[in-house]
Amino acid sequence: MLVGGLGEEALLRKLRDIFASSEPNVRVGIGDDAAILGCPAGKEAVWSTDLTLEGIHFERQWQTPQQLGRKCLAVNLSDIAAMGATPSFALLSIACPTDTEVDFILELARGFAGLAADESVAVVGGDTTASAGGIALSVTVGGYIDDGAALLRSGAMVGDSILVTGKLGSAAAGMQLIQEGEGEAYPDLTAAFLEPSARIGAGLAAVKVGATSMTDISDGLASDLRHICEESGVGAMIEPASLPFSPHLDEAVIRFGWNRESIMLSGGEDYELLFTLTGSIAEQVKEVIAHESGQQVTIIGEIMEHEYGVRLVDRDGSGRDIPRHGYEHFQSSY
Amino acid sequence: MLVGGLGEEALLRKLRDIFASSEPNVRVGIGDDAAILGCPAGKEAVWSTDLTLEGIHFERQWQTPQQLGRKCLAVNLSDIAAMGATPSFALLSIACPTDTEVDFILELARGFAGLAADESVAVVGGDTTASAGGIALSVTVGGYIDDGAALLRSGAMVGDSILVTGKLGSAAAGMQLIQEGEGEAYPDLTAAFLEPSARIGAGLAAVKVGATSMTDISDGLASDLRHICEESGVGAMIEPASLPFSPHLDEAVIRFGWNRESIMLSGGEDYELLFTLTGSIAEQVKEVIAHESGQQVTIIGEIMEHEYGVRLVDRDGSGRDIPRHGYEHFQSSY
Repeated sequence: MLVGGLGEEALLRKLRDIFASSEPNVRVGIGDDAAILGCPAGKEAVWSTDLTLEGIHFERQWQTPQQLGRKCLAVNLSDIAAMGATPSFALLSIACPTDTEVDFILELARGFAGLAADESVAVVGGDTTASAGGIALSVTVGGYIDDGAALLRSGAMVGDSILVTGKLGSAAAGMQLIQEGEGEAYPDLTAAFLEPSARIGAGLAAVKVGATSMTDISDGLASDLRHICEESGVGAMIEPASLPFSPHLDEAVIRFGWNRESIMLSGGEDYELLFTLTGSIAEQVKEVIAHESGQQVTIIGEIMEHEYGVRLVDRDGSGRDIPRHGYEHFQSSY
Repeated sequence: MLVGGLGEEALLRKLRDIFASSEPNVRVGIGDDAAILGCPAGKEAVWSTDLTLEGIHFERQWQTPQQLGRKCLAVNLSDIAAMGATPSFALLSIACPTDTEVDFILELARGFAGLAADESVAVVGGDTTASAGGIALSVTVGGYIDDGAALLRSGAMVGDSILVTGKLGSAAAGMQLIQEGEGEAYPDLTAAFLEPSARIGAGLAAVKVGATSMTDISDGLASDLRHICEESGVGAMIEPASLPFSPHLDEAVIRFGWNRESIMLSGGEDYELLFTLTGSIAEQVKEVIAHESGQQVTIIGEIMEHEYGVRLVDRDGSGRDIPRHGYEHFQSSY
C-alpha cells in the first residue's frame, strides 16, 4: 500500500505504535499538540536538530529503510554525545512522496525506534507530510547534562593534546565505494557510512576525566578541528602518521587510487569524537576513556598558539597547512 | 549571490548574526554541536516540531520570504500555545537548492527572527543543507509550563462548552484566493493564510481559567475536534450558526461559489485555539479570556456522551454527522 492511499491519520497511528515507549521523564509523548518532558533538578537540557535528505545525504537504493532510520537518529545522537550529554528524547519528521510504500516508512520508523530503544531515547513527537520532491527526514534530539558540565568547542588550551575516538575516513570511503557500485568490497567501510554509531559512552567518559573541549567529526577532521580552533582562539598541530585508520581503507586507497590523507582529513560523516585534554595527563586518561567506552582512542596532535595556524607536521618536522574545508553541503567540495 | 557560491560556513555565520539574542535560559545558543538550555524549577518542558515544504505548504511566489519565515515559526508556536505553555526556544533547519538567492534565505531568517523576538523566543540552533528538490523548512519549538498545568486533548468532560478563538475558514479561503490569482480581493483572508498568529496569550488565559482540554486548529475544525473527542472518549454537538467567520468570507463564498460551511469545518491552517470549559462558567470565563488575550472567543457547541458522535445540530434541531476528515496532507481531500 502507498502512503497516499493510507492517509496521514492512519500512518500516524501506526507510527505511534512503533514509537510506544515508557520513559520516566516523558509526561506526554506522541499524540497531543506537543510533548511534555520533565526537567530534572540540577540538569541543563541539550538540544540539536539535523536534516537528512534524499538526493543529498542518501539515495534510496544505498541502504535498507531500517538502516536509514537508524542513521538519521545516530547523526543527531552524535551531536548530543559531542557535548558529553546523555540523549533522552527524539522527534522525527518524515516527508515523502505520496507514492512511497507504507512499508518503507514503517521499516524506517522501526530502525529509528530500534536505535532509540538501544540508547534509552524516547520518541516523543514529529510530523508527517507529503513531499513534492524526495524523502526528507528531520530529527531533533534532546538530552540532559549536569549544570555547567557540557564540553564546548571553546575550551581548548595551548598545550592540550588532541584526541579522536575510532578510525577516520572509513565512512567517506564507504560512501565512495557505494557510489562506484563497489559497496560489497569492504563491508566495514560501507558499514561505517551506512550504520554510524554515536559515541555517547566516550562523550560521557570525556566529561568525567576533565576534557577541555569536544565536537563530533561530521564534516571531516580538517573542518571540525577548525571549529574548535576558531571557538577556542587557538591553533593546532596534527601529526599525519598518528591518524587512525582501518587496514581496509589502506587497501581500498591503493585499489581505487584515492588519496588517503585527503579522505581522512576532509571526508565527512565519521561521527567520531574529537576532543582536547591537558597534555600531561593525556596518555593515562585516554586509556580510561577507551576502557569505559570500548572505543579506540588516539592522540593525534597538540593545541598550539593561535598564530601557529592549523597545520600538519610530519615526524621529520616538515609542515603544511591543513586544507581549509571539509565536506560542505552547498559547495560539495569533497 | 547564490547559496551554492557562498557556502555553508559563511551562510551559518550570517544566520548566527540574524539570530543573535540574549535569553536567560540559553546557556549556549547557535555555534556549538548542540544548544544548552536551562531547566527552571517547578516547570515541565514542552516541545513540538513541524515541516514546511515548497510545493506542499507553500509556493515561492505566494508570499515574501519574510512572511514565509514568520509563518513557519508561527505554526510551531501554535502547538506550544495549544498546550497553554510559553514558548522559549526555536531551532530552524533550512534546505534549499544551491541556486537559491542568499538574500531570499536571509530575508526568510529575518522574518523568523522578527517573530521570535516579538514572542521572546530565542533561536538556539538548526541546520543548513542543499536540497535536491525545493525549499524545506523544519522548525522545532520548546517552551515551559508549570508542572502538571498543560492542557491536553484528553481532558474534555460531558457537559463542557466548546469554544474557539478568532474566526474560522479565513486561512483556507485565503489560500484558495491566492491559488486562483485573486489574492488581492480580500486582504484579511489572504493575511490569515500568509501571516497566521499563534494564540499564545489565549492559551495561557485558558490554563488560568481552568479549561479542561485544548488543541489548535491546524487541519480544520472537523478534524481537530475529533482529536479532542477521541482522546477524551466523548462526543460533541456543534451549532453551525454559531461558528465565527469574517464578513469577507461570506462575500468571497458568494462571489466564487464556495461552500462556506465546508471551508469553516474542513479548511486547514486557522491556527485558532479550540478548547473546552465547564459549561456553567463558560459564558463568564470566555469574556475573561477575550479580555486577557485580545482575541474574539466564541462558544460553538457542547461536549456530549461518546455514543452521540460528533454532530452538527441546527437551531431547528435537525442534525448530521460532521465530515470525518479535515485537511489531510497525504490524501489532499480538501
